[in-house]
Amino acid sequence: MEYRIEKDTMGEVKVPADKYWGAQTERSRNNFKIGAAASMPLEVVYGFAYLKKAAAHTNHALGALDEEKKNLISKVCDEILEGKHDDQFPLVIWQTGSGTQSNMNTNEVIANRAHVINGGKLDDSKKTIHPNDDVNKSQSSNDTFPTGMHIACYKMIVETTIPGVEMLRDTLKQKSEEYKDVVKIGRTHLMDATPLTLGQEFSGYVSQLDHGLKALKNTLAHLSELALGGTAVGTGINTPEGYADLVAEKIAEFTGLPFVSAENKFEALAAHDAIVESHGALKQLAVSLNKIGNDIRQLASGPRAGIGEINIPANEPGSSIMPGKVNPTQCEALTMVCAQVVGNDVAISVGGLQGQYELNVFKPVMAANFLQSARLIGDACVSFTENCAVGIEPNYKNIEQHLNNSLMLVTALNTHIGYEKAAKIAKAAHTNGTTLKEEAVKSGFLTEDEFNEWVKPEDMVGSLKK
Amino acid sequence: MEYRIEKDTMGEVKVPADKYWGAQTERSRNNFKIGAAASMPLEVVYGFAYLKKAAAHTNHALGALDEEKKNLISKVCDEILEGKHDDQFPLVIWQTGSGTQSNMNTNEVIANRAHVINGGKLDDSKKTIHPNDDVNKSQSSNDTFPTGMHIACYKMIVETTIPGVEMLRDTLKQKSEEYKDVVKIGRTHLMDATPLTLGQEFSGYVSQLDHGLKALKNTLAHLSELALGGTAVGTGINTPEGYADLVAEKIAEFTGLPFVSAENKFEALAAHDAIVESHGALKQLAVSLNKIGNDIRQLASGPRAGIGEINIPANEPGSSIMPGKVNPTQCEALTMVCAQVVGNDVAISVGGLQGQYELNVFKPVMAANFLQSARLIGDACVSFTENCAVGIEPNYKNIEQHLNNSLMLVTALNTHIGYEKAAKIAKAAHTNGTTLKEEAVKSGFLTEDEFNEWVKPEDMVGSLKK
Amino acid sequence: MEYRIEKDTMGEVKVPADKYWGAQTERSRNNFKIGAAASMPLEVVYGFAYLKKAAAHTNHALGALDEEKKNLISKVCDEILEGKHDDQFPLVIWQTGSGTQSNMNTNEVIANRAHVINGGKLDDSKKTIHPNDDVNKSQSSNDTFPTGMHIACYKMIVETTIPGVEMLRDTLKQKSEEYKDVVKIGRTHLMDATPLTLGQEFSGYVSQLDHGLKALKNTLAHLSELALGGTAVGTGINTPEGYADLVAEKIAEFTGLPFVSAENKFEALAAHDAIVESHGALKQLAVSLNKIGNDIRQLASGPRAGIGEINIPANEPGSSIMPGKVNPTQCEALTMVCAQVVGNDVAISVGGLQGQYELNVFKPVMAANFLQSARLIGDACVSFTENCAVGIEPNYKNIEQHLNNSLMLVTALNTHIGYEKAAKIAKAAHTNGTTLKEEAVKSGFLTEDEFNEWVKPEDMVGSLKK
Amino acid sequence: MEYRIEKDTMGEVKVPADKYWGAQTERSRNNFKIGAAASMPLEVVYGFAYLKKAAAHTNHALGALDEEKKNLISKVCDEILEGKHDDQFPLVIWQTGSGTQSNMNTNEVIANRAHVINGGKLDDSKKTIHPNDDVNKSQSSNDTFPTGMHIACYKMIVETTIPGVEMLRDTLKQKSEEYKDVVKIGRTHLMDATPLTLGQEFSGYVSQLDHGLKALKNTLAHLSELALGGTAVGTGINTPEGYADLVAEKIAEFTGLPFVSAENKFEALAAHDAIVESHGALKQLAVSLNKIGNDIRQLASGPRAGIGEINIPANEPGSSIMPGKVNPTQCEALTMVCAQVVGNDVAISVGGLQGQYELNVFKPVMAANFLQSARLIGDACVSFTENCAVGIEPNYKNIEQHLNNSLMLVTALNTHIGYEKAAKIAKAAHTNGTTLKEEAVKSGFLTEDEFNEWVKPEDMVGSLKK
Repeated sequence: MEYRIEKDTMGEVKVPADKYWGAQTERSRNNFKIGAAASMPLEVVYGFAYLKKAAAHTNHALGALDEEKKNLISKVCDEILEGKHDDQFPLVIWQTGSGTQSNMNTNEVIANRAHVINGGKLDDSKKTIHPNDDVNKSQSSNDTFPTGMHIACYKMIVETTIPGVEMLRDTLKQKSEEYKDVVKIGRTHLMDATPLTLGQEFSGYVSQLDHGLKALKNTLAHLSELALGGTAVGTGINTPEGYADLVAEKIAEFTGLPFVSAENKFEALAAHDAIVESHGALKQLAVSLNKIGNDIRQLASGPRAGIGEINIPANEPGSSIMPGKVNPTQCEALTMVCAQVVGNDVAISVGGLQGQYELNVFKPVMAANFLQSARLIGDACVSFTENCAVGIEPNYKNIEQHLNNSLMLVTALNTHIGYEKAAKIAKAAHTNGTTLKEEAVKSGFLTEDEFNEWVKPEDMVGSLKK
Repeated sequence: MEYRIEKDTMGEVKVPADKYWGAQTERSRNNFKIGAAASMPLEVVYGFAYLKKAAAHTNHALGALDEEKKNLISKVCDEILEGKHDDQFPLVIWQTGSGTQSNMNTNEVIANRAHVINGGKLDDSKKTIHPNDDVNKSQSSNDTFPTGMHIACYKMIVETTIPGVEMLRDTLKQKSEEYKDVVKIGRTHLMDATPLTLGQEFSGYVSQLDHGLKALKNTLAHLSELALGGTAVGTGINTPEGYADLVAEKIAEFTGLPFVSAENKFEALAAHDAIVESHGALKQLAVSLNKIGNDIRQLASGPRAGIGEINIPANEPGSSIMPGKVNPTQCEALTMVCAQVVGNDVAISVGGLQGQYELNVFKPVMAANFLQSARLIGDACVSFTENCAVGIEPNYKNIEQHLNNSLMLVTALNTHIGYEKAAKIAKAAHTNGTTLKEEAVKSGFLTEDEFNEWVKPEDMVGSLKK
Repeated sequence: MEYRIEKDTMGEVKVPADKYWGAQTERSRNNFKIGAAASMPLEVVYGFAYLKKAAAHTNHALGALDEEKKNLISKVCDEILEGKHDDQFPLVIWQTGSGTQSNMNTNEVIANRAHVINGGKLDDSKKTIHPNDDVNKSQSSNDTFPTGMHIACYKMIVETTIPGVEMLRDTLKQKSEEYKDVVKIGRTHLMDATPLTLGQEFSGYVSQLDHGLKALKNTLAHLSELALGGTAVGTGINTPEGYADLVAEKIAEFTGLPFVSAENKFEALAAHDAIVESHGALKQLAVSLNKIGNDIRQLASGPRAGIGEINIPANEPGSSIMPGKVNPTQCEALTMVCAQVVGNDVAISVGGLQGQYELNVFKPVMAANFLQSARLIGDACVSFTENCAVGIEPNYKNIEQHLNNSLMLVTALNTHIGYEKAAKIAKAAHTNGTTLKEEAVKSGFLTEDEFNEWVKPEDMVGSLKK
Repeated sequence: MEYRIEKDTMGEVKVPADKYWGAQTERSRNNFKIGAAASMPLEVVYGFAYLKKAAAHTNHALGALDEEKKNLISKVCDEILEGKHDDQFPLVIWQTGSGTQSNMNTNEVIANRAHVINGGKLDDSKKTIHPNDDVNKSQSSNDTFPTGMHIACYKMIVETTIPGVEMLRDTLKQKSEEYKDVVKIGRTHLMDATPLTLGQEFSGYVSQLDHGLKALKNTLAHLSELALGGTAVGTGINTPEGYADLVAEKIAEFTGLPFVSAENKFEALAAHDAIVESHGALKQLAVSLNKIGNDIRQLASGPRAGIGEINIPANEPGSSIMPGKVNPTQCEALTMVCAQVVGNDVAISVGGLQGQYELNVFKPVMAANFLQSARLIGDACVSFTENCAVGIEPNYKNIEQHLNNSLMLVTALNTHIGYEKAAKIAKAAHTNGTTLKEEAVKSGFLTEDEFNEWVKPEDMVGSLKK
């Protein structure tokens, strides 16, 4: 490979000749060979592109950067956002915990690419744009990384997580309405219980997701706060007057999202509680989705020795050895995602609780885990919806058989003959393998007519059914 | 010990003669000898007392319970809430996951105590009040336990957690204002950085707690939803018309808290995402508090070989072997609480994600962990405030010495001479053990007068100082 | 309440007149009102009693303590171990993270009680025994608390955890052998699969527990290492020559357990990886037990609309509203314990990873979580064994019905007619609601005789059955 | 893109014309668009290659596969292991939880590639090798995926994790020996304590890693157990006599690692406690490494307002805004890895505890998290060693200054004048800002000569120094 020589304040470094990155990026590549290359999420890179552009505009507006430089920087940022330079960001998550090196990676790529756009060459000794003095003007890694991280996380939530969860919610809601009259047996403790409708059962899932979405949206205000303007330690050293608010406005404008300047920059650098907070809501959604995925695979279990009250689409051959087997694979992918998100929540907490003085240096690991969770939940909900939820159908035969056999219909007798007598009837039927009606009549506690009038599954499912 | 014979639908059981509980409580005592006795939190018991009273009032109002029974049940509930029957609740957390046995414990104690109040004796074969048919009327364990749990958790948050956190927040805010002009060195990556004021540093803690309190309050709407009225599976079987809303109103009235009937009873029984949600906010507070506790003990470290920029109260001899040692013990208690809460969050998630069909059977473990976290955070904040935070004082001597020695004041030169030249000056001073000013002048990049004008720590702390 | 005045190096403190504890204990009581009183586990107190006695014997043997003092200290330690002074240890977990105050609580109780035994009075101004100079001789909180913690944790594991798990393992093993010929359907992905025997299914649980026990025992070597002799920072300052090894020998002798002196005292004070390690094995057991508990409740589900292949004992009325309902309550208690242990593991990790320099100050929270997990697993296994596992019986009727209906018996045809043809037969039977044999014969791929010869469930369960 | 038509038991699928994979792989690609493509770790693919080759050899040896097929399959497996087909495995982690689709991906690639090697074309309607009947012979996804997972995880541990940790351990051990005479102040509770040597301090880290390595190695026996031979549910249906043991021998031979056939195949399919167990040890290492990384960055903090007792290499410019700043970046990368591993441990536990009946369907998420942790720990230790640990040097000036100023040297007086008098001296010196010696002499408790004789830091560091 061919190289050119780049310099930073520590000296010279050999950099691949055709790459836009510079000395500090290359040092990081060499010093942090941990895990797969280029693991820093591209979403964070794009977050940086938004903020570098906004900073250039703001610096220009406040008289700290000339128009040509502003335009050049902006142009490169736009190129990055179009995905044209994805291969210029080779760094890993496991670098400095402030993300300084990813900040410098962005600064160097923008400076060098701007120089080339401007007609220069990568090995020119003097460049049009300086990575620190121009691209990074009025900034520090300590405020840019959290800003890029918030932009990336916020965007992922509103563009992927929420739409995915809403798609699933809407589909389940439609199913809930469609099956609002399908009376079936309820189960508590996995044991037969009083009946409800299939629609009611699904309405619980809808309610879980509605609450989860609300919880997630509640966290967005904190996540919309941007650290930019705090610079090195939160005091805003080396920023022009009015910078923090204006740069947040610019970011809001460029992203189309309601970002604001953080009300306290010390918190915004030294703690990432906003990440902890929003991911807490993602974890809540994972808890909900695990329950939903589990229920659906249990309800669909069988085909002959399971519960079998719903049918789900058969998308793939289920077994490499058992011919004809079809499995609840979407439930499995979904619940695996849930396990991951619950784990990621701990990684984020452990990172979040170890901030020190003016800086938390677990930024990259927090960002990476957050983005993974937010994307996986969104993607998994879409996949689950399209490949499973939309195709759910009741298995009426099994539903009716389970309902009619149930001993728990006896509960309807409590208000007529009391709990203890009702229990005797249920136990007799259980022991003798008979029906409730047989034992009810035999017991003398009520007549067959009374039984027929009092024990009607369709009357036991309450007002929600109507 | 003397015993009497009690009966339930499974037969006879020997119960301690002087206890109000009955057969089902005793069965549970015998069948679940797991961990310490009586570990079910009393707060849950009190939650039950509120709801049993509310249910009696509601049943009476709707014509399902006569006035005498209502009054008797109410009276016992009031006694329980006054703490008169704490020793009547011997059951453990590790019982049935629906908490049925704690529900029955309450039903039995109320029924038997009511009978005694009414002039009866514990071994009378016929009782005034029936634990199932009267006390538990229009209820099921499946809706009472989550209701009791929500009441207990909500109360703990508003009575203990929030006041405790607010007390600490207020104290830190006062310190932040008091020390708003104390310029000190900042630290990022644990390394010397540009200055800020001690007040600014503390303002970050205040902001963390403000955000955490807001996050916690955001979750209370979900937690205010009560399952009561859902009965066995969420359909509300065996409840009179209008019951669910009225009973929630009564609970709101009796507790003085804004409880409402859950909008979806299936969710309220089968999932405890409200617990997951609120505890997520408690975990966020733990993450914040761990950072605060860590910072304060680091800032107070020394006395001679540490950071030593603040002094904290010396409350106890710190060492059994090193005479005169004083330790940041309140920070330690606080951060141990944080570790516990982060762990509890996982226990709650693991319980929350395993609901099945119409019921989640990890209710007691979720309630117990939640209540522990909510209480510990509140108590620890009070303890930390009273025994540490109020007594924090700057150690001006160390603050000044650290500030004046700092090489990072060089940052102020970036906007005048550029990042690279500034770096050269800082490095020279570091290598030679000299001051920035010496090396600045020696470098020729600026004059001594310029240095004196440009490098003023008090000008580097930004607008927040003013 | 009456008080007496006690003194320590910080001054005077009022202490309840009838208590043996002194000034430092009382300071801690007042300064750490966090959570319930006296939450420090008594097992830790007993661990201290063992080590204080061993230290006294060792100090005496090495000429550093006279015989009378040794005997007095020993006598009080024995009284503590007999449970006579349980009410003398009022401190909480949430104190200083080194446990200094619990160490001093022990020192003070021993010194004062010894003085009383020796004929003195609690308010004598001069005492026979000094809490620091005598009871704590050759010790520091920093080495005593980890020693007491290891003693407590080791004892709990060998006395409660292992016997409990072994009891369950043995019972499941017996069931596994008893039902080794009961051929039943297998289930993978919750879906019908090829058959196995009920004994084989249970043998998997036995193997899980065997592996878990082995893993737990593997960790005991680390846990057997005692910090004592390291004193303040691990160097053993203020200990007589030969002290560390001898005191470990004495503790081994007094406890009857194979304790040894830690090979590196710096590790033993500054890190509690032994606690992390052993609790990791407890967490593994929790993971295993959760699977076992889940399986058993699923296999027992029904009675009419579930799987119902086994019956479990009906120990309590299962529902306060549904008469005659019986629930898998032991499974629920067991799996709630598992959720707790998984959470505790995180609390312990979070504490363990935050040691600093020569000390980890999350000792009490680590000890408390460990002891809770170790006890809960042991107790829950005993409870589950006695109240559930021993009573498990196959439900032959359901087992046979599920087996005979299964489509997955078609797998036996793979080696005769290939996977694809076998799949066609299974799908036809599924679609048409027919039997495999009917469709096999109809397909022309094989004859009825061949089917009868090739498809025998009892031949499909492999060598383990024999 | 050009396509060809492939078929499976569910019908036809369009597959990219130039890819070796077949219908089932393509179905999975389409049905599981969750997260980044091809996220299934290549290590698992290589694990499959080992086992498919071993199965072919074993089937041949036992008369179930002809030699030509065995050779063809082997040849493709070798090609896969040489990395020639990495782009043929496009599937994601978030697929079916049994990994069936990755098993079929391997089967299809091997079958089609073998056909091509044998002179055939990808769109031939009849192929030399059948993915199920030949490549998957005597196998099921249910036993192959756990086998591939164990191979991958075991290899990662012995090839990456252990060597990385050992490299760091060896370097720290060397430092520990090198600095065994450098007496410095100890710190407990972050506060000044009695002295120790820098070598002793580092010996604690060495001991942590030694214990961690031992713990990790203790888990390898369980991880060496292979599920292969259990096939669909653990009974070994459709395997020839002697298959399980022989195929494990072959895998051991091909990998050079001591794999054995699992003693209980039901456990090996339905639970992945071996993954939980080994990852528990990885988590323990993470806990240890976090402590080490934290200590080193604290000891290196400064340069002028921190602890500054060691110097670490300056590898990169540390700040984009603060010139000349150098940060402990390797410590940060290392501790971020630790946070990840602690989180991964929870993801693995949550997956591990949800096995059901004969199968755990969280296999891919467990494998992926395990492999990430094992690799990250190994890589991070190498990076930390090479870029930080080897370059650690004592800062003698600061070490001496801290040591000589320390008030905790007073501890040496305990055995001469008692704890209380010693405490008085220390307090006086603290209050007056004087030296211990001054106050000691002033106190009258001892003479200056006695002080000089009794208080020698180098005598306070115990036997380990010698």
